[in-house]
Amino acid sequence: MPRIPVRPLAHTQTSRAEAFSDGVFAIAVTILVLDLVPPPHPPGGLARALGHLWPAYAGYVASFSYIAVIWLNHHQIFIGIRTLDRGLHAANFFLLLTTAALAFPTAVVSEALSEDVSGRDARVAVALYAGISAAMCLSWAALYFHLSRHPELLDESVDPDYVRRGVSRSWTGIVVYAIAGVLGALVTPLIALIAFILLPAFYFLSSSSVVPTEATA
Amino acid sequence: MPRIPVRPLAHTQTSRAEAFSDGVFAIAVTILVLDLVPPPHPPGGLARALGHLWPAYAGYVASFSYIAVIWLNHHQIFIGIRTLDRGLHAANFFLLLTTAALAFPTAVVSEALSEDVSGRDARVAVALYAGISAAMCLSWAALYFHLSRHPELLDESVDPDYVRRGVSRSWTGIVVYAIAGVLGALVTPLIALIAFILLPAFYFLSSSSVVPTEATA
Amino acid sequence: MPRIPVRPLAHTQTSRAEAFSDGVFAIAVTILVLDLVPPPHPPGGLARALGHLWPAYAGYVASFSYIAVIWLNHHQIFIGIRTLDRGLHAANFFLLLTTAALAFPTAVVSEALSEDVSGRDARVAVALYAGISAAMCLSWAALYFHLSRHPELLDESVDPDYVRRGVSRSWTGIVVYAIAGVLGALVTPLIALIAFILLPAFYFLSSSSVVPTEATA
Amino acid sequence: MPRIPVRPLAHTQTSRAEAFSDGVFAIAVTILVLDLVPPPHPPGGLARALGHLWPAYAGYVASFSYIAVIWLNHHQIFIGIRTLDRGLHAANFFLLLTTAALAFPTAVVSEALSEDVSGRDARVAVALYAGISAAMCLSWAALYFHLSRHPELLDESVDPDYVRRGVSRSWTGIVVYAIAGVLGALVTPLIALIAFILLPAFYFLSSSSVVPTEATA
Repeated sequence: MPRIPVRPLAHTQTSRAEAFSDGVFAIAVTILVLDLVPPPHPPGGLARALGHLWPAYAGYVASFSYIAVIWLNHHQIFIGIRTLDRGLHAANFFLLLTTAALAFPTAVVSEALSEDVSGRDARVAVALYAGISAAMCLSWAALYFHLSRHPELLDESVDPDYVRRGVSRSWTGIVVYAIAGVLGALVTPLIALIAFILLPAFYFLSSSSVVPTEATA
Repeated sequence: MPRIPVRPLAHTQTSRAEAFSDGVFAIAVTILVLDLVPPPHPPGGLARALGHLWPAYAGYVASFSYIAVIWLNHHQIFIGIRTLDRGLHAANFFLLLTTAALAFPTAVVSEALSEDVSGRDARVAVALYAGISAAMCLSWAALYFHLSRHPELLDESVDPDYVRRGVSRSWTGIVVYAIAGVLGALVTPLIALIAFILLPAFYFLSSSSVVPTEATA
Repeated sequence: MPRIPVRPLAHTQTSRAEAFSDGVFAIAVTILVLDLVPPPHPPGGLARALGHLWPAYAGYVASFSYIAVIWLNHHQIFIGIRTLDRGLHAANFFLLLTTAALAFPTAVVSEALSEDVSGRDARVAVALYAGISAAMCLSWAALYFHLSRHPELLDESVDPDYVRRGVSRSWTGIVVYAIAGVLGALVTPLIALIAFILLPAFYFLSSSSVVPTEATA
Repeated sequence: MPRIPVRPLAHTQTSRAEAFSDGVFAIAVTILVLDLVPPPHPPGGLARALGHLWPAYAGYVASFSYIAVIWLNHHQIFIGIRTLDRGLHAANFFLLLTTAALAFPTAVVSEALSEDVSGRDARVAVALYAGISAAMCLSWAALYFHLSRHPELLDESVDPDYVRRGVSRSWTGIVVYAIAGVLGALVTPLIALIAFILLPAFYFLSSSSVVPTEATA
């Protein structure tokens, strides 16, 4: 559509973008529980049936933690964002789209594991989870890259190094999730599952302040 | 009910109307993922079954993007809104009702396409999607029209031309969605599907600031 | 539990109570769309199957409008509320509980009507809808009654008459919904359905400002 | 992962953590209604089928009230929280994870009770509900314990006694839910059900202000 002139968008304050994002994160994290449904069972067989749901419990805890960590990183970078332009809105939408989608591969993985923990379907399922997680890291890379090109969107107190580090942290995720997906599909799903736990832990522990601590308190 | 006197409603500040709207937008966009469910499949057949879900993936991305763009336009116009009267609340409710409803035609279209991409049911499905999208554009036209009649609801910095342009942008959507629905039903669903992608892109690129950029930063 | 001492609760500002309530209202109104699911149909029979869903469409529009109107009234009264005590929190929770529950009778009514618009099940269904709506009006009565007993929770600008009028508006709803439920069950569901449309319209048109208009702009 | 250096996280203001938490609480409380679905029934049998759903109604009211009370306590303590560090974020995530999970045991209990109110499955179900409730109390204990170790996260007006009392209130819940789960599993589910009603009532009545009332008004 090259004929449509791209009009100037107001560089808007961040409060509504944060409110909309917080809403999506909160819903994405909470609807994960909709995959936990009372299992069908013969009379007296509830305990055993609940036990068989362990992949669903593990998936709930893992994806809940992952999305909470994403929210925390989103919170940290937005402390330093002064205003949004159209490109930053687009990167943020892409980030929200991939985060909200995470409920789907979570359900696929937990269902596949409950049937056969190392079969062909489990390999496909972890590859799907890895692929969507890699796409989410790609959205982070886009967001940080856009900020590095448009420093006027950031507060003056923001260390430019923070944004550069954000790009490389995102690429770490893209590469590790891609490798985890390939090895999980070709070798054993266990490799991928370990990566699915370690990467959010890494992003939780390596999250840090976009501005000096004393400036945010 | 002509006997009921219509009482004066406080012209209220916009923060709670924005919070309520942000909530509806965030939920409407996130529950789209509930249409992505692990497909039934024979052992070893997960990869193929996942592949057959492509219309659901396309629907998720398309409707997610559409609602995100609606939110962005809502955000832009509300920057210039100072206060809401009963009529503006009504137009906003109509807008939220049609936006939240979008999950339904999305599911109908993706199911119909997964059965037969150009059959009779696919034609009906795209007509439904076009109809609800046209109704949503109608709610935008009502909102802009109400603002054009009640400029006291707007900030003084708002360019009256912005509101007039909003009315005509809304009518563009009503007309194009109506044509897309008719052609999609009578000729081929493909025409409608192309419109469903181009129109949100148009609304994203043509969204612009209700107030001069320098006033919002 | 008479032995547990009731500790003083901080009279807290209203922002988080409003945010929590806005969240519940937004979700309650948006999940109504989850009752609209692509209908099963033979190949080529989608149009006819969609047509049969008319009670679900009507239920979606009616309950969406009703909850939006409840939100508007909640918004209006909270403009005048300065702080919440434990009793006001309890009344607000009761209000949110009944509002969130509305999705259930909506689904029951639309399902019953789609089978037989005037049969025994339709009569039971409208009685259920009327009962829950009456309970919601009861929660409003409790909220206004509590405010009338604790004027210290209100802003000084609030007209005491507003709160008294709120109590009587709530009792109007309790009585009319009760009558509508009884007549709908014993005579014809149509009477109840008309009441389900007229009452929200009444609450929309009779909603008014808790404080003088000039004080809120 | 001992090699990853833990970077300093900004001590951030509480508004986004509150917004994210409010979103999760609001959704967790509202999606409980998704367990209330129109029951299958023969023509004319709706009234009887609705009557059989009483455990689902009871579960909806009980868990709705419980989550509302949790929100109220969360609201009270956050009035006194000045800033969040990584540990407090982690405790808050754990709290949200267990709160959002409550929809699952609620559904399991109401389904088990609707089949046999005192059978083996009902015993297992109440034990599950008690276990997740105890885990939630554990998250509260972690949150209060962290605050007692990091008083710099609190406002100066906060009474240190409040935090100590929070730890012991949390342990009360852990112990009582554990006992209720064991007795419910071994003796009769009724004991557990009574505890599930009394404990939220206790937390509602014993919730109190983190700061003197006059400071929050």
